[in-house]
Amino acid sequence: MSDESRSAPRPRVGRTTAGRRRLRHALTVAAIEKFSEQGYDATTVDEIASAAGVGRRTFFRYFRSKEDAIFPNHEEVLGRIEQLFATADDRQNPLEVACAGVGLVLDSYLADPDVSVKRFALTRTVPSLRDKEVASVDRYQRVLATYLRARFQAAGDPLWDLRGSVAAAAVAAAHNHVLRRWLRSGGTEDAHAHAKEAFALVIDAFADAAPPRSAGDDESVIAVLKASAPLSEVVRQISQALRRDG
Amino acid sequence: MSDESRSAPRPRVGRTTAGRRRLRHALTVAAIEKFSEQGYDATTVDEIASAAGVGRRTFFRYFRSKEDAIFPNHEEVLGRIEQLFATADDRQNPLEVACAGVGLVLDSYLADPDVSVKRFALTRTVPSLRDKEVASVDRYQRVLATYLRARFQAAGDPLWDLRGSVAAAAVAAAHNHVLRRWLRSGGTEDAHAHAKEAFALVIDAFADAAPPRSAGDDESVIAVLKASAPLSEVVRQISQALRRDG
Repeated sequence: MSDESRSAPRPRVGRTTAGRRRLRHALTVAAIEKFSEQGYDATTVDEIASAAGVGRRTFFRYFRSKEDAIFPNHEEVLGRIEQLFATADDRQNPLEVACAGVGLVLDSYLADPDVSVKRFALTRTVPSLRDKEVASVDRYQRVLATYLRARFQAAGDPLWDLRGSVAAAAVAAAHNHVLRRWLRSGGTEDAHAHAKEAFALVIDAFADAAPPRSAGDDESVIAVLKASAPLSEVVRQISQALRRDG
Repeated sequence: MSDESRSAPRPRVGRTTAGRRRLRHALTVAAIEKFSEQGYDATTVDEIASAAGVGRRTFFRYFRSKEDAIFPNHEEVLGRIEQLFATADDRQNPLEVACAGVGLVLDSYLADPDVSVKRFALTRTVPSLRDKEVASVDRYQRVLATYLRARFQAAGDPLWDLRGSVAAAAVAAAHNHVLRRWLRSGGTEDAHAHAKEAFALVIDAFADAAPPRSAGDDESVIAVLKASAPLSEVVRQISQALRRDG
């Protein structure tokens, strides 16, 4: 954190939410432009504020430091994820809910391709920005792990703690893979299609961690399988058969 | 990195490998004792070297900075993992090989419970030590991902890149979970038993990423399954049946 840091940003009373969001975005765009043009170290908070048409006091109502200025509003996204988890249906596959959660993170990057791609270039060259990026990934992963552990524990999984950590890491890695690929493409690829594929992979990997069927189903299922079929295909078929009326 | 940092440690010519390893360990023990007793910031390299009975020049033959002094020899462990991967049988399940790789990391912590437990306490209170720990986890995960991607790609998996990243994150998370649990127990729990359980979970999760059976097996397998059985149990049984002669 720079020596210009403050204890906490204080949004100005009276400005509308939309207005605040616009000004925050203008400061982010200004910071990214300045950092890219003249270098991160050489840029001051005053220059960023001035480029966005405000004073340094206004800057510090939105950001703690100049590092902070280029990142998405992680607090806001984390809040939305926690709300999604708090209101999710307990009968939904926990991995699907977790993937919907990181989908909100992905959307926050996709919402502004130009800013996201330029930020990506900066985090690859400025170590302190890269450290902040890594720290934010860690925070999302913790929120995912907390949700997944609770769901697995509620389902009576004896390995809930372990499975929660591992599944959260897998979901975060799937998201990071999709995001990085999209950023490397300069924000041009179809990230939603890749996300769908990536989320399907982790949901499939942890399919046996889904909640048990609620009804007292004790009928038998007879499956005739090709021994040479890929196990993934066999698992998918059986999983569908066992749950078709669940 | 502190201002006392050096570009690279230069091991003294003439000292035996065992002798160098002993002196390195003595410096690590001294650093951990000093940091724990009088605080990380208040401890100098001279004090650490002196506590180990050597001079500061000798200290810098082993470590770049005082932060470095308390960590396991990650370079050495990474080298051993890469050798394991380079010589692994391509018919072995790639997840099993990856787990054997992180098993070497776990063993490097288990080899010295006292140092590991005290280091854990320090990384929880000193941010710069915690950052170094996070960075080392990232390095192991990259080595795992490189291996797994290559194996999946060689097996013709169209999602090799994605699956390699996700599986590597899952393996690293399983290892971290076991290590953290053992450290929290003060180094008293049976980490190997927990590792076996954790590795089984990730191997199971990515079971469909295992290489296909080599023989031209086209016989059918008839499975009679209880619809109420947990899917994990069903998958395990079928997986065994399909591979019993694989």
